[in-house]
Amino acid sequence: MGQFAIGIDGGGTSCRAAVIDGAGQVLGTGKAGASNILSDLENSLIHIVASARQALLDAGLDPELVQKLPAVIGTAGANVGNYGKQVEGALPFASTRVVTDATIALQGALGDADGVIGAFGTGSVYNARRNGKSWGIGGWGFVIGDQASGARLGRDLLERALLAHDRVTAGSALTKVIMAEYGNDPERVVEFAHASKPKDFARYAPIVFEYAGTGDVVGADIVKTAASAITKSLDALLWPECPSICLLGGLAQAYRPWLDERHKALLAEPKGDVLRGAVELAAKLLRGGEEHKA
Amino acid sequence: MGQFAIGIDGGGTSCRAAVIDGAGQVLGTGKAGASNILSDLENSLIHIVASARQALLDAGLDPELVQKLPAVIGTAGANVGNYGKQVEGALPFASTRVVTDATIALQGALGDADGVIGAFGTGSVYNARRNGKSWGIGGWGFVIGDQASGARLGRDLLERALLAHDRVTAGSALTKVIMAEYGNDPERVVEFAHASKPKDFARYAPIVFEYAGTGDVVGADIVKTAASAITKSLDALLWPECPSICLLGGLAQAYRPWLDERHKALLAEPKGDVLRGAVELAAKLLRGGEEHKA
Repeated sequence: MGQFAIGIDGGGTSCRAAVIDGAGQVLGTGKAGASNILSDLENSLIHIVASARQALLDAGLDPELVQKLPAVIGTAGANVGNYGKQVEGALPFASTRVVTDATIALQGALGDADGVIGAFGTGSVYNARRNGKSWGIGGWGFVIGDQASGARLGRDLLERALLAHDRVTAGSALTKVIMAEYGNDPERVVEFAHASKPKDFARYAPIVFEYAGTGDVVGADIVKTAASAITKSLDALLWPECPSICLLGGLAQAYRPWLDERHKALLAEPKGDVLRGAVELAAKLLRGGEEHKA
Repeated sequence: MGQFAIGIDGGGTSCRAAVIDGAGQVLGTGKAGASNILSDLENSLIHIVASARQALLDAGLDPELVQKLPAVIGTAGANVGNYGKQVEGALPFASTRVVTDATIALQGALGDADGVIGAFGTGSVYNARRNGKSWGIGGWGFVIGDQASGARLGRDLLERALLAHDRVTAGSALTKVIMAEYGNDPERVVEFAHASKPKDFARYAPIVFEYAGTGDVVGADIVKTAASAITKSLDALLWPECPSICLLGGLAQAYRPWLDERHKALLAEPKGDVLRGAVELAAKLLRGGEEHKA
């Protein structure tokens, strides 16, 4: 069965799989539940396999082929303890390579080239590859990290709204809109904040960018603070001859105008998404090419 | 029974009560469990009464006197909805006055004078009294408020330690000590942060002040940020002829050297603690003096 392989993006929201042929062509795709191997290994394994079987069906192939094909899975936590090895051992594929979500994101965005990626969604995280060696920073979660995440933008906005309500710092049209949403009752804002998860705070990211773009002082201040965190993080990763920076995630476009000019000059469009990265690594595996480490 | 009254500090950690005579002299004190009327009204009522009965016993009086004496209780949440009235109606005292924790803190620190108080412990909150009218700002909790609280100092410290670990911002002796505490493993720092409550973060406040005092760049930066939040909050409350500012709480002394010179010039020692405030209001009630509103 040397003619097909499976690439899987084992994401925290869903698993997406693609079956490819020997030429790297995608024949079919599938989707199933989330992969969170650190917090729910059992269901993660079920979802990874389910997405692969769906992809085989979508390609008009027998789903039982999962046991005869090689697969590459990218998933967060693959580099923690022996979780990656555990997943490799528990999956039914003929041969299995488990790498981190960062590895497939880097491969998808940069192909085989060197460069830096920054991903900005509910969280924020940065990865780099230089001479084939990859490493990352950030992504520590919104309580004490993820300074450029949607969650932090939203949390900062609510904090600024309360400070403006107390007349401690200047308010703006944006803080007025937020307070009005809560009936101008700070207790209700606090109640929301204490019951909220990162994705709940992140829902405010679009309005922060919208007002920042029209010159709202508070909105612009929040975005500038986050953009300054991006600048420092990119500077921590960059090297003089780094060829490109790719921004990924739902907030990538919104951040572009706020970046430092030095970094804007290096911006490049990602070549593909994370599933594309898993597919490329699966194609390498099929070709018996060099292996990529997490 | 016009000769005794009871003053109670209904705190979030414990209730403290004092029995006073007509001259305002404390005859006995008592202590019982917490009062959190918004989250646990039933137990709060039990603890308030238990502290009062203990105070009567301590004074050598019959604990059944609770039903014949007037009482003043200061507790957080007394100004929320009809919680204050509910507590007043449910307690067994001959007459009951429920006021906010801020009201008894103001009375304890300032007596009958005008002025401003700032309380800095696990949280941070500010109150003012001008011409007998009182109001407050802050105290919104550490997720999106309490900028000068011990909890925020600790959270900021862990965030700075991770940024230094990632080489995004400069580290210091302080961030090295923190990372060493977690075996230089950022995952463990994140694990602590996500499992922690405000009081857990606040345990780092003393070390932040300690290092800040010796010129540690990160420590000093964290304290300066918090002190700048204090400056803005005090400025939001102050008026030109405000006679004094009292700092309360476990971090009050530590913040003193970091305050703005304009505010340092107004600093005064608190006249008494919050229980003293409750006692003073109880004495007024006993004397049939003017009533204080929450």
